[in-house]
Amino acid sequence: MTTAVINKDRMKTFEELESAVRSYSRGWPTVFTKAKGYKLWDVDNKEYIDFFAGAGALNYGHNDAKMQEKIIEYIREDGILHSLDMGTTPRKEFLETFQEVILTPRNLDYKVMFPGPTGTNSVESALKIARKVTGRDSVISFTNAFHGMTIGSLSVTGNSFKRHGAGVPLHHSVAMPFDDYVEDQDSTAYLEKFLEDSGSGVALPAAIILETVQGEGGINAARMDWLKKIESICRRWDILLIVDDVQAGCGRTGTFFSFEPAGINPDIVCLSKSIGGSGLPMAITLIKPAYDQWGPGEHNGTFRGNNLAFITAKKALSFWETEAFSKEIKQKANLLKNKIDTIIAKFPELKGEARGRGLMQGIAVHADGLAGKICAEAFDRGLIVETSGPSDEVVKFLPPLVIDEEGLTKGLAILEDSIVQVLSK
Amino acid sequence: MTTAVINKDRMKTFEELESAVRSYSRGWPTVFTKAKGYKLWDVDNKEYIDFFAGAGALNYGHNDAKMQEKIIEYIREDGILHSLDMGTTPRKEFLETFQEVILTPRNLDYKVMFPGPTGTNSVESALKIARKVTGRDSVISFTNAFHGMTIGSLSVTGNSFKRHGAGVPLHHSVAMPFDDYVEDQDSTAYLEKFLEDSGSGVALPAAIILETVQGEGGINAARMDWLKKIESICRRWDILLIVDDVQAGCGRTGTFFSFEPAGINPDIVCLSKSIGGSGLPMAITLIKPAYDQWGPGEHNGTFRGNNLAFITAKKALSFWETEAFSKEIKQKANLLKNKIDTIIAKFPELKGEARGRGLMQGIAVHADGLAGKICAEAFDRGLIVETSGPSDEVVKFLPPLVIDEEGLTKGLAILEDSIVQVLSK
Amino acid sequence: MTTAVINKDRMKTFEELESAVRSYSRGWPTVFTKAKGYKLWDVDNKEYIDFFAGAGALNYGHNDAKMQEKIIEYIREDGILHSLDMGTTPRKEFLETFQEVILTPRNLDYKVMFPGPTGTNSVESALKIARKVTGRDSVISFTNAFHGMTIGSLSVTGNSFKRHGAGVPLHHSVAMPFDDYVEDQDSTAYLEKFLEDSGSGVALPAAIILETVQGEGGINAARMDWLKKIESICRRWDILLIVDDVQAGCGRTGTFFSFEPAGINPDIVCLSKSIGGSGLPMAITLIKPAYDQWGPGEHNGTFRGNNLAFITAKKALSFWETEAFSKEIKQKANLLKNKIDTIIAKFPELKGEARGRGLMQGIAVHADGLAGKICAEAFDRGLIVETSGPSDEVVKFLPPLVIDEEGLTKGLAILEDSIVQVLSK
Amino acid sequence: MTTAVINKDRMKTFEELESAVRSYSRGWPTVFTKAKGYKLWDVDNKEYIDFFAGAGALNYGHNDAKMQEKIIEYIREDGILHSLDMGTTPRKEFLETFQEVILTPRNLDYKVMFPGPTGTNSVESALKIARKVTGRDSVISFTNAFHGMTIGSLSVTGNSFKRHGAGVPLHHSVAMPFDDYVEDQDSTAYLEKFLEDSGSGVALPAAIILETVQGEGGINAARMDWLKKIESICRRWDILLIVDDVQAGCGRTGTFFSFEPAGINPDIVCLSKSIGGSGLPMAITLIKPAYDQWGPGEHNGTFRGNNLAFITAKKALSFWETEAFSKEIKQKANLLKNKIDTIIAKFPELKGEARGRGLMQGIAVHADGLAGKICAEAFDRGLIVETSGPSDEVVKFLPPLVIDEEGLTKGLAILEDSIVQVLSK
Repeated sequence: MTTAVINKDRMKTFEELESAVRSYSRGWPTVFTKAKGYKLWDVDNKEYIDFFAGAGALNYGHNDAKMQEKIIEYIREDGILHSLDMGTTPRKEFLETFQEVILTPRNLDYKVMFPGPTGTNSVESALKIARKVTGRDSVISFTNAFHGMTIGSLSVTGNSFKRHGAGVPLHHSVAMPFDDYVEDQDSTAYLEKFLEDSGSGVALPAAIILETVQGEGGINAARMDWLKKIESICRRWDILLIVDDVQAGCGRTGTFFSFEPAGINPDIVCLSKSIGGSGLPMAITLIKPAYDQWGPGEHNGTFRGNNLAFITAKKALSFWETEAFSKEIKQKANLLKNKIDTIIAKFPELKGEARGRGLMQGIAVHADGLAGKICAEAFDRGLIVETSGPSDEVVKFLPPLVIDEEGLTKGLAILEDSIVQVLSK
Repeated sequence: MTTAVINKDRMKTFEELESAVRSYSRGWPTVFTKAKGYKLWDVDNKEYIDFFAGAGALNYGHNDAKMQEKIIEYIREDGILHSLDMGTTPRKEFLETFQEVILTPRNLDYKVMFPGPTGTNSVESALKIARKVTGRDSVISFTNAFHGMTIGSLSVTGNSFKRHGAGVPLHHSVAMPFDDYVEDQDSTAYLEKFLEDSGSGVALPAAIILETVQGEGGINAARMDWLKKIESICRRWDILLIVDDVQAGCGRTGTFFSFEPAGINPDIVCLSKSIGGSGLPMAITLIKPAYDQWGPGEHNGTFRGNNLAFITAKKALSFWETEAFSKEIKQKANLLKNKIDTIIAKFPELKGEARGRGLMQGIAVHADGLAGKICAEAFDRGLIVETSGPSDEVVKFLPPLVIDEEGLTKGLAILEDSIVQVLSK
Repeated sequence: MTTAVINKDRMKTFEELESAVRSYSRGWPTVFTKAKGYKLWDVDNKEYIDFFAGAGALNYGHNDAKMQEKIIEYIREDGILHSLDMGTTPRKEFLETFQEVILTPRNLDYKVMFPGPTGTNSVESALKIARKVTGRDSVISFTNAFHGMTIGSLSVTGNSFKRHGAGVPLHHSVAMPFDDYVEDQDSTAYLEKFLEDSGSGVALPAAIILETVQGEGGINAARMDWLKKIESICRRWDILLIVDDVQAGCGRTGTFFSFEPAGINPDIVCLSKSIGGSGLPMAITLIKPAYDQWGPGEHNGTFRGNNLAFITAKKALSFWETEAFSKEIKQKANLLKNKIDTIIAKFPELKGEARGRGLMQGIAVHADGLAGKICAEAFDRGLIVETSGPSDEVVKFLPPLVIDEEGLTKGLAILEDSIVQVLSK
Repeated sequence: MTTAVINKDRMKTFEELESAVRSYSRGWPTVFTKAKGYKLWDVDNKEYIDFFAGAGALNYGHNDAKMQEKIIEYIREDGILHSLDMGTTPRKEFLETFQEVILTPRNLDYKVMFPGPTGTNSVESALKIARKVTGRDSVISFTNAFHGMTIGSLSVTGNSFKRHGAGVPLHHSVAMPFDDYVEDQDSTAYLEKFLEDSGSGVALPAAIILETVQGEGGINAARMDWLKKIESICRRWDILLIVDDVQAGCGRTGTFFSFEPAGINPDIVCLSKSIGGSGLPMAITLIKPAYDQWGPGEHNGTFRGNNLAFITAKKALSFWETEAFSKEIKQKANLLKNKIDTIIAKFPELKGEARGRGLMQGIAVHADGLAGKICAEAFDRGLIVETSGPSDEVVKFLPPLVIDEEGLTKGLAILEDSIVQVLSK
């Protein structure tokens, strides 16, 4: 039997029983069984190197042994699993550890909200509280932003395919150009002019929401100066600054929060994906105490209390107790950056452009359709890597932060082989 | 130390570090540690009977031993935990079992969508696909509906406090009177007239969304005839019928789907809460194949692939392999109904009114503020029970379906004692 | 040449040069030249009796001799014609006369706003100020309401063809059942329940807007008790009551304001059509002083100062200096009512139903398509009469209020002949 | 009595009886009685030179003798005044003359729609038909645009005070930077990038609506190249181009349509203000035949058939039978431009900036509050001139096009005296 036939057979259940909306199971047509660290295995025991990390949900790798131990122990002891937002020991310990390990050392003062266990829930809660606090209805977001798929989050998301999927016009949001959007034009000058001019047609917004590095939008990394400028615009006009750190946070760019190097102090921060440590669903919204003006239960949800996730989340925070982890990420980021530059130089046919920072990097391939072919080829060769960007033109590298040099090098070698193969066709 | 002081101390972490939006930890001011079946324990090892069941997420009780065993085994083997919508063994097995145990025997034909692991995600996906398929933008929902807290779901939710929390006007929805809304007036006549009359100001909607028993809205159970009438209106006008079975589904009313006794066949069904079996976050959207017109990835999300939940979800489906479980629920429901009637008769001061069906029942207490006091008193006495309804006027009984008669009787005894105590004040 | 050919030729200019949106020139395919009192003449000098009165804009008939004299004199003296909202003598005199003849004797206290010269402008201004004053965004309107064709007014209009023409979803409005909407159901009970119930999904509105007799919607006359009930609901809930008296006002129902017999006191009243007296464009919005919270120029428009219209408007108010005019209208209304009842009894094939009050009456013809045929036949026979209602099922009688008995009788005779002719086919 | 006391007394009626929304009667506190050509007189027979021309509604001056004659004759003959969109002789003759004098010689092919007698009605109709034809909901407008005060038009208007007056969020519109909005940045590059990039968050719009010279927005004249670029963007993306020529059309900039020098061919053109010739309310919407996809009566209104306006409108078109009028306007525009330059040079304290083209020019006074003071002083000295711009910072010159050199010179002399006086304070 050919691979195609095998795969078809293997994927039959999904094709027959699951909705047409399924996506990853199309590009990676296999059934995964096991995973550890930066590796996955499928039903044929084929090994894959993971340069995808659950779209950023597995910064600490798959199945960290200490996290496994903690949750097995908890389950064995009949620890309460589901608890909405009732008090539980894991919730309490997560709150205390997050305060001690993350907030206090960074001199940050936030209340922690559990908005439901997904990134879009965190964004929806951030938008709600910003609107409530300011009494304004619109929110400024940026070109190629991705903030989630529920109607509130989708209204501040750029992608036209996803927006169109809403089935209704999306309102209360204004798209402004992200950093470096139009060549040689300063995007903050536009934004500022629109705010200054009472005839611009753009009302003073409740908030500006941004990702410091746009993941789905094409690994667009804003410059630190741009972030500072945006923060100063927020301060000048009394606009709340929301950083959606769902993908770029939890160490992805080298620091726990992606905005740390910019020295800015957002009013609201959205975290999800890797905040749970192990890939179990969890999200939090950080809100400056002055803006924590919720009524009890004004935003709620059934799965705010995922205690298994709290346990692995707490364990994951131990990575941040010293500077070591951050340093490691930066070293690996440099290795990755150098390799990307080498590849771009070596394969001019790619018309490649380096993108991103930390372990959130990519190659924008300005040769139509090539990026997708490279990722497909890489999958066959045992590397999980996907595209992003408005035209799926960016090969995106999101390895687990715990990957070692060997894994990184090996994955990049597969990638290079895949490029050679694709270009040779 | 008094209880109040102890509780204050115990809850300090939540009060200081968590957002003001927290709610259950206010009404039930303790820290829970363990849970099994229909019981919970807190840090003081105080035992509670659970008449709340994670707001319907724990129909199979806490920490079912077989489910625990399955997930521990999976974790031990480094089974892949996080997988977006990639193919995995637990996902495959859940799909197959759901088809075999639930859909096929009921002669139902649905594609299964994994919309993200929460009820509101399922509702958002249902609204999107209904709008896409019909090309219409508005959706009819009912008074006192609760469908979720993200903007799309909130737009079809009735509660004014929660709607106001949106911070923006909510559109593309029309509220119609639920069954028995205004005394002696047939709410379907009203709905039908609005649809018939081209001058009514109400456009033909993409869908009608309903709960067969409104949980948050006050345990309002629609009559089977009313449900049939709504279905026939949908058929006549080519409107999609969405049943939000997030709370009333998964056996809560005695059958797997709450709409089974009405003999209706919804176009889309939303399931969450107990679909995961164990209280781990999971949701699915069931879509008739003809309407499964999604583009790949048109709706997505990071936590669609919660493999631990798939494993316990599959295990939970074994409850439905025979008729026995359904029969048991109905027996317990009768016991509960009788006791409710007795209580209402015995305590006329409550101005009580019986509500609901199956193990989703309640007492509407038409004496201001009493319902809340009764629940508070019950908590002190070791019973977890909460209110619902637009004015929190309904004492709501949602015990785990696996509760035994002893537990049910004991819980109801505590409730009765609590009523006596409250009325004596 | 046949009439059809002549008409085609005659209408060529309109068919070739004018937009497809034209409507009356289709149903009445001729070119009108002259008009006086209740009569019109076309290019062939064919005479028509007018039972349409410019859709209510010609209550005082065509070309009142005294009005003609006044405006010719003004033009001759180079009186200022266009003046936005600058002070001019005709504006001043209109304001003073309106106060003296209309407001003061009725014990009404309103500020007069000139919102632009059309009914929809008046409605748009009413909605704006109601929203500003209350800080609420939604407005309750009624089934089969017609308030205008600009987006604000259209959002509170019921007709689905016109609403669909907006090209965008229409928001911030809730349609409630008008008086007697569903047989044997009290529509105010629904409205009240929706407002009372905090879980209804219908927010407290800024205003309730209504026509006491719905013209375009099918000559539906609300009962006085219903109007009083709506007013009391407005008072109870602190909702502004807007009466759109654009068509039913200016004496159409027998009193200057259509709501006078109900004894209600609206917060805002919209007047246009016949307020200008002669059919020249003019509109005013009456606002209780406490709610007149506009900033200068917050609503404006180029043609607020139509001085010719102010002159004829002032002249028209002289009709209201005594009770005589009102009495006359009521006498003619009785004559009309009796004749309608006779026709309905005489022609059971019509399945006729009497509608309306004052000189705003109609026959709902519950036999498909007949109403339109009757009007077409009547046109051929020299009577201008049109249909209204969601399915154009109502033959609508809006003769000029100044019509004499002879004219009324003659017109009704033509109508009866037309019915005979149509039924004989 | 001082002037202030006299004025107060004189304006009493307006202050006491009229709504607070009144605006011009505040800045020009007198009662006007007569007007001829470019002059007005008030109750004291004080003469004013008119540099305002009814905000562009009086391009042909006040009370043109031939127009007066025509309408007096029509009234004397009992010509039909009010006719909705029925066929009448004046309507027919206007349509024919407009075709012959305006459209045919310019090689333009448009259907003429009568949308109601005001500019905002024309804009609302343009937006509706663009949305219907394209099936898209959003419309792109520009910073500092002014298109009218009803909700549809207001949604594409920039001014925040006016937008806020809506009382509801304004949707389905996206504000883009007008020509020369941010220094040294090409605003079309920005627009084009937003359209090109499927991740921009800006959907393909139904239409782009623009004024070639923004009147209310501050006399901002777009460059011809910019207009051509916008047209080419519309063609590339299949977007309808709407030119709102309500203020800049009818010869105001030197050609009948303001866009003629750019050589563009809009899909829809809105005309009002001076289209009626005499200041009587009238508006038309010009629609390319392919887009004239209205259903009969899909947009309507009571005052579409203002026959007096049709008569003066037809007469006004005679100005355009030869090139002479256009040449004259250009000569006077040069005179005006030179004088503006002289004033700016002579009074550096004004920080003046020349704006506009044709007889639609202005001086942006970048010294806070001075523009308003100059206009107030000019009024006292007998010159009617008003400010525009987001901060009322532009002294706007809109003399009647028929003004003679003497009038222009005299008016400018008053202006200069007023500047001297204001600067001396």
